[in-house]
Amino acid sequence: MISFRSDYSQGAHPKVLEALAATNFEHTDGYGEDAHCRNAAGMIRRLIGREDCAVHFMVGGTSANLTLIAAALRPYESVVAARTGHIYVHETGAIEATGHRVLAAEGEDGKLTPAAAERALAEFQDEHTPLPRMLYVSQPTETGTLYSRAELTALRALCDRRGLSLYLDGARLGAALTSEQNDLTLRDLGELCDAFYIGGTKNGALFGEALVILSPALDDHFRWMMKRQGGMLAKGRLLGVQFEALFEGGEESVYFSAAAHANAMAKRLREGLGALGVPFFADSPTNQQFPLLPASAVRELEKEFFFYEWAPEENGRIPIRLVTGWGTTEEEVDAFLSRLAVLLAR
Amino acid sequence: MISFRSDYSQGAHPKVLEALAATNFEHTDGYGEDAHCRNAAGMIRRLIGREDCAVHFMVGGTSANLTLIAAALRPYESVVAARTGHIYVHETGAIEATGHRVLAAEGEDGKLTPAAAERALAEFQDEHTPLPRMLYVSQPTETGTLYSRAELTALRALCDRRGLSLYLDGARLGAALTSEQNDLTLRDLGELCDAFYIGGTKNGALFGEALVILSPALDDHFRWMMKRQGGMLAKGRLLGVQFEALFEGGEESVYFSAAAHANAMAKRLREGLGALGVPFFADSPTNQQFPLLPASAVRELEKEFFFYEWAPEENGRIPIRLVTGWGTTEEEVDAFLSRLAVLLAR
Amino acid sequence: MISFRSDYSQGAHPKVLEALAATNFEHTDGYGEDAHCRNAAGMIRRLIGREDCAVHFMVGGTSANLTLIAAALRPYESVVAARTGHIYVHETGAIEATGHRVLAAEGEDGKLTPAAAERALAEFQDEHTPLPRMLYVSQPTETGTLYSRAELTALRALCDRRGLSLYLDGARLGAALTSEQNDLTLRDLGELCDAFYIGGTKNGALFGEALVILSPALDDHFRWMMKRQGGMLAKGRLLGVQFEALFEGGEESVYFSAAAHANAMAKRLREGLGALGVPFFADSPTNQQFPLLPASAVRELEKEFFFYEWAPEENGRIPIRLVTGWGTTEEEVDAFLSRLAVLLAR
Amino acid sequence: MISFRSDYSQGAHPKVLEALAATNFEHTDGYGEDAHCRNAAGMIRRLIGREDCAVHFMVGGTSANLTLIAAALRPYESVVAARTGHIYVHETGAIEATGHRVLAAEGEDGKLTPAAAERALAEFQDEHTPLPRMLYVSQPTETGTLYSRAELTALRALCDRRGLSLYLDGARLGAALTSEQNDLTLRDLGELCDAFYIGGTKNGALFGEALVILSPALDDHFRWMMKRQGGMLAKGRLLGVQFEALFEGGEESVYFSAAAHANAMAKRLREGLGALGVPFFADSPTNQQFPLLPASAVRELEKEFFFYEWAPEENGRIPIRLVTGWGTTEEEVDAFLSRLAVLLAR
Repeated sequence: MISFRSDYSQGAHPKVLEALAATNFEHTDGYGEDAHCRNAAGMIRRLIGREDCAVHFMVGGTSANLTLIAAALRPYESVVAARTGHIYVHETGAIEATGHRVLAAEGEDGKLTPAAAERALAEFQDEHTPLPRMLYVSQPTETGTLYSRAELTALRALCDRRGLSLYLDGARLGAALTSEQNDLTLRDLGELCDAFYIGGTKNGALFGEALVILSPALDDHFRWMMKRQGGMLAKGRLLGVQFEALFEGGEESVYFSAAAHANAMAKRLREGLGALGVPFFADSPTNQQFPLLPASAVRELEKEFFFYEWAPEENGRIPIRLVTGWGTTEEEVDAFLSRLAVLLAR
Repeated sequence: MISFRSDYSQGAHPKVLEALAATNFEHTDGYGEDAHCRNAAGMIRRLIGREDCAVHFMVGGTSANLTLIAAALRPYESVVAARTGHIYVHETGAIEATGHRVLAAEGEDGKLTPAAAERALAEFQDEHTPLPRMLYVSQPTETGTLYSRAELTALRALCDRRGLSLYLDGARLGAALTSEQNDLTLRDLGELCDAFYIGGTKNGALFGEALVILSPALDDHFRWMMKRQGGMLAKGRLLGVQFEALFEGGEESVYFSAAAHANAMAKRLREGLGALGVPFFADSPTNQQFPLLPASAVRELEKEFFFYEWAPEENGRIPIRLVTGWGTTEEEVDAFLSRLAVLLAR
Repeated sequence: MISFRSDYSQGAHPKVLEALAATNFEHTDGYGEDAHCRNAAGMIRRLIGREDCAVHFMVGGTSANLTLIAAALRPYESVVAARTGHIYVHETGAIEATGHRVLAAEGEDGKLTPAAAERALAEFQDEHTPLPRMLYVSQPTETGTLYSRAELTALRALCDRRGLSLYLDGARLGAALTSEQNDLTLRDLGELCDAFYIGGTKNGALFGEALVILSPALDDHFRWMMKRQGGMLAKGRLLGVQFEALFEGGEESVYFSAAAHANAMAKRLREGLGALGVPFFADSPTNQQFPLLPASAVRELEKEFFFYEWAPEENGRIPIRLVTGWGTTEEEVDAFLSRLAVLLAR
Repeated sequence: MISFRSDYSQGAHPKVLEALAATNFEHTDGYGEDAHCRNAAGMIRRLIGREDCAVHFMVGGTSANLTLIAAALRPYESVVAARTGHIYVHETGAIEATGHRVLAAEGEDGKLTPAAAERALAEFQDEHTPLPRMLYVSQPTETGTLYSRAELTALRALCDRRGLSLYLDGARLGAALTSEQNDLTLRDLGELCDAFYIGGTKNGALFGEALVILSPALDDHFRWMMKRQGGMLAKGRLLGVQFEALFEGGEESVYFSAAAHANAMAKRLREGLGALGVPFFADSPTNQQFPLLPASAVRELEKEFFFYEWAPEENGRIPIRLVTGWGTTEEEVDAFLSRLAVLLAR
C-alpha cells in the first residue's frame, strides 16, 4: 500500500531521528529550559531576522492554536477565520472550549479576504456580540492555496486599522515557503504577523511546532498558558533538538529541502494528473493535491493507495486529497499515475 | 555535572529509541488509529487482565489529567485531591481551566485519606457548593510514598458508597509497581480504579502516558475530548510504538526492569544517606529521595550535582529531591554519597 | 416621546406589581424554595398538561439560555441555531463562554429548517469537529415570525432521528401563543420540546422567565447549574409571585390577555402601515413590526418616537422595528400612523 | 412563624417598592442605559467622593462576583479568599466555572490576613502554578465580623507590593457601614479597593447590587462581560430606580437607616442572649448573630422561629444564625428571647 494519506504518516526525517539519538543520554532540565531549545530558538530568530521575538516549542498544532488564541483574547473577544479554517472545521471546538467564538467568514480559495473580515467586524461590534479581535489564517490553507505578500499585507493593514491581531497557522509552512508561487519569506511573516507557528510535525519532525510571538502583549506569561492548557512538554528538549536538526544550515537546512522535495513530488503528481486530463477541486501549488476523480477509479485506487476522500461524491466524481512529504518518492508518484492512467482508459 | 534532577532529564530508554527508528519509515494512519497503538493497547489490557477497558495514549501527564477529569465531571462537579496533589500544586490551574474545582484535602504522607475525603464531602454537598464526584490520587505520591492495597481499597469503598469515581495518576507508576513496599498490581488497579494512567515519560519513553479507562461512562466520546483539549497527537503511532517497546515481554519487559533499576539506585542512595546519618523529609520507597541536608553542604553539592531544592531552608537544613531513573548508574550514586560524606565530615 | 422601542421598556403589568406589593412583607425561604414558586410552577404544569416536567424560574433570557444549554451539552457538543438566532447574534458569546460552539445555520424567515440543520449535522460528525446535539429555535423568531405546528414537528422528528434535543427560546412566547397565525399550544410545546422557556420580561413581568424542562436528563442537578452560572435569585419568590400573577386564571390570565393586546396593537400598526403603502422587511404576525421607511421619514419620526433602526439604510430606505406591549395604546399607534402619513405625503 | 432566616426573606423596603410603582409606566431604554441608572450611579459616586469610578448595576451577588473576577483576571490567574469566603463555600464553583482557581487561605474570624495571603503567594508563584492576582474579601464577613481600616489598609499595602487587585464583596455592606465597630467609610473603600459592590438585595432592594470599579483596567469592556456572563438585566432601569430610592438623601438615606435598624435589632438580640448567658460561635457586630444553643432548645425554637442551623451539633450545642433586617421588629426579637429564656430555664 503506497500512502498519500498525509505528511504526518511517517516518522521523522532521518536527520531528526539522528539528532534525537545523538542527544539521548544527555541530562537536561525540563519544560523547554535547556540549551537545545535556546539554541533552536536562536536559529529561528535569525531566520526571521528579529531578535525581539519569543519562540515557544509546542507539541502539536491544535495545542499551539488554542494556547495562543486563549492567551491573546480577552474573554468576550472572538477570532475570525475562513469558513474552511482548521480551527473551525477540524479541532473539535478547541477554541470554543477556551470560551471564545470562532467567527466563520466566507473565504475565497480557502483564504480569508479583507472584505469578508470587514463584514464580520461590521456585524459584531456592539456590546451584545462577541468582539472580533484577531484574524486567523493558515499558510498554506486547508486546500493548499497560498496568501500572496499583497494579500497578507492587506489583512495586516486591516488589523492595524481595526485594532486586531493577526495570527498565522503554519502547520505546513515549509510547503508554502518553498512553493514556486510563494512570495512571502519568514522575515515577511515576522513583520506582518503578531504570531505564527512553523510546523514541524508535517515537515520532518516526529512532532512539534515552533510558535513565534512577535507582539509582546501576546507573550505575557505565555509559559503559564502553555502549562495551564496541557501543552508544556516535560522533556521539552526533544523539541529543541528536533528544530535544531531541521534548521541546521539555515536556508539550506532540512526544513527547506524536505519541504521543497514534497512540493516537487506534488508538482510531479499535479502535472501527471493534468496530462491525464484530470480536473482539480482546488488549485494548490503546495504539497496537497485535490484531483476530482471518477468514483469508480477512486474505488479501485483505494485498494493500492492510501488517501482521503475529501468530500462526498458529486455527479459521479469524488475529490480526493493526495499529500506528499519528505519521504515521498518519484516511484510512488509514478505508480499512482500509471494505475490511474489504466483506470481512466477503461 | 551528575544529574538527579528528574526521571525525565534524559531521552528515551535505548529499546524505545530503537523501536522508533525501526518503524520510522512506515506509513500509518494518524491520531492513534494504527496497528501499533492497537497492539500496545492490547498488551496493556492483558497486563491488567481486562479486555473491556479503553486505552488512550496521551502526550503528557497534565494533558491526561485535565482531559480525563473534564470528561468525567459534569460542570458543577469537583475533584478531591490531597493538598500536595499534582493537579493542585503543579499544573497551573489546568483543571480549573476546564471549569472544575480541585478541592484540596489535607493528606497524610502525601496521601488522600478516606477521612479527609469524607470531610470534604460533608462540607460540600448542597446546591450552593460544587459537588465532589471524583477522588484523585497519585501512585506514588509527590513525595514518593505509596498507597497500600488496603488504603486504595478503602478509597474505592468510599467511592462506591458515595457515588464517586476514583482516578489514579500514575506518572511514576513503574516505580510504584516495582517498589519493595508495593502490594498493588496492575490487575488490582484495573479492579479498584475508574481510570488510571501508566506513565511513560518518567520511565523510559521519550514522552507519553497510557490512559486506561475502566468505567465506560468516563470513556464516552473520549477521543472528542482529547482533540478538543489539544491532546490528540497527529502521529499517534509514536505513542503506540513506544509502549510496545516498553511492554514487550510483559512482566519481564523494559517498563518493569527500568523502574526496578531506578528503585534500586534510589535504595542505594537511601541506604548510603542513612549510613551517613542523614534524616529524610519524606519516607519514600520509590525512585525519589528527600534527604534533609545542611544548607552549606547543599551549596557545595550544587556545584557538581543537579537536583531540586524541595522546600526553603529551615533551621539550617534544606530538603532536596534526588530522583533516579533507568539511566542512573551506581557510579553516579556513589559519587554523590562520597562527596556528601566529605562535606558532612568537615 | 412615544415608545415602540421594545416590550421591556416599561415596568410590570399592574397586576404583577400589585402581587409584589401584596406579598412584600411575607417572609419566605430564599432561592426559589417557597410556596409562591411551587404554586406558580404548578399553574404552569397544568397549562402544559404535564405533571412530570420541571419548572425553574430564571432572571433573564440569556441566563436561561446559557444555563440550560450548558446543562444539556457534554463539553464537546454544540448547539445549532439559525444564523439570526438570539444566542448567535445578541448574547456576546455567552454560550461559547460555557465552552460550546453555536453552529450558525442559514435559516428561512428567521427560522431553522430541517434541511439546514441536516447540512450542519452532515458536516460536523467526526471526532475532529464539535458534535451537534441540540437545536435551538425561538418562538417567535427575532423577526417576529412563527414556527407552525408542522414545522416544529419536523424539527422534533429530526431530533429523534439524530439523537438531538430541541430547545425553544420563548422570550416572546406570549405573542406567539396569541397570534392569529399560531397553531401551537403550550401543550404542544410540552410534547415537542425537551425544554423551553415562557418569557415574562417581555410580557408583563418586571423580569423573569419560566424555564420548563421536559427531559429529565436535562434537569439533572439543574439548580447546581443555576447557582454556578450566577442565575439563582436570592429572593426567588419574586419570580414565583410574578408568574402567579401572570397565570392566575389560566387561559384567561394576564399572560394571554396582555400578549393578545400587544398583538392587536401590532396588527393595527401593520394594517395602518399597509394602508399607507409601506413595504415590510419581515412579515411578522406578532408584536414586532418591521416596516421599510424612507430614510428621511425615519429621521423625522425619531424626533417624536423611540424605536430601533433594525439595519443600515439601503437604497434610501431603513428597516425599523416597532414593538408593542401590554401598555401600548391605540392612541400611540394612531399618532405614529398619522405622523408617518404626513411625512410620506410630503 | 417569626423569621430570622435571612435579610433577604422579605420583599423590598416600602420606599423602594413605592419608587418602582411610581416609575412603572415610564418607557426607558434597556440594559441600564437610562436616566435612573445614570442618576443612581451619580449618587453613589458622590457618596464615594470619586467622579472617576464606574458603577454597574448587577442582579445578584454571585453574578457580580463572577463577572468582576472573570473580567479582572488573565486565564492563568487566581483569586485568594479566606477559607470561609462566599466565593469558596457558597457559589457552586461559579468562579472556577470561569476558569480561575479560588485559592482558599486560612483566615482569622472569617477574615483574610496579610500573613495568610503572603503564604499563598509564596507557594504559588512559578509557572507550574496558577498565579494569585487578586484578594477577595467581604465586608462584613460570612460570620458578621468586620475588617478595620487598619486591616484593610494592610491588605491594600500587600496588593500594592505584590501587584494584586483588591476586591470587596459588600453583600451586607450596609450592616458594616452602620455598625458601631466600623471605622471604614464608602470613601475609604473608594481609596483602598480596586472594586467593591454595595449590596442591595440584603438591605432593602427587591434585588440588585451596585458594583463600583475604581481601577480602569478592571472596567475595560465590562458591559461585554456582563452580557456574556448572563448578568445584564433587560429592564436595567429597575436597578437604577431601586438604588435611587435607597440612596435618596445621601447619608440620611434608606440605605443607611435600614441597615442601622437591622444592626440595632441584632444588638438587642445579642444583648438579650448575653443576658441569658448564651455563648456565641462568632463575635459579630453586625446584623447576623451566631449563638450556641443547647440542641434541645433549638428543636423547640424551630417550631416557632425560622432560622439556619449554622453547623452540626457538637457537645450538645448547635450554633444557629439569626439575621435581622430592615423589617425586623423589637417584638420579634423579644418574642425570641422570651421563648429562649423559658427553654433555658427548664
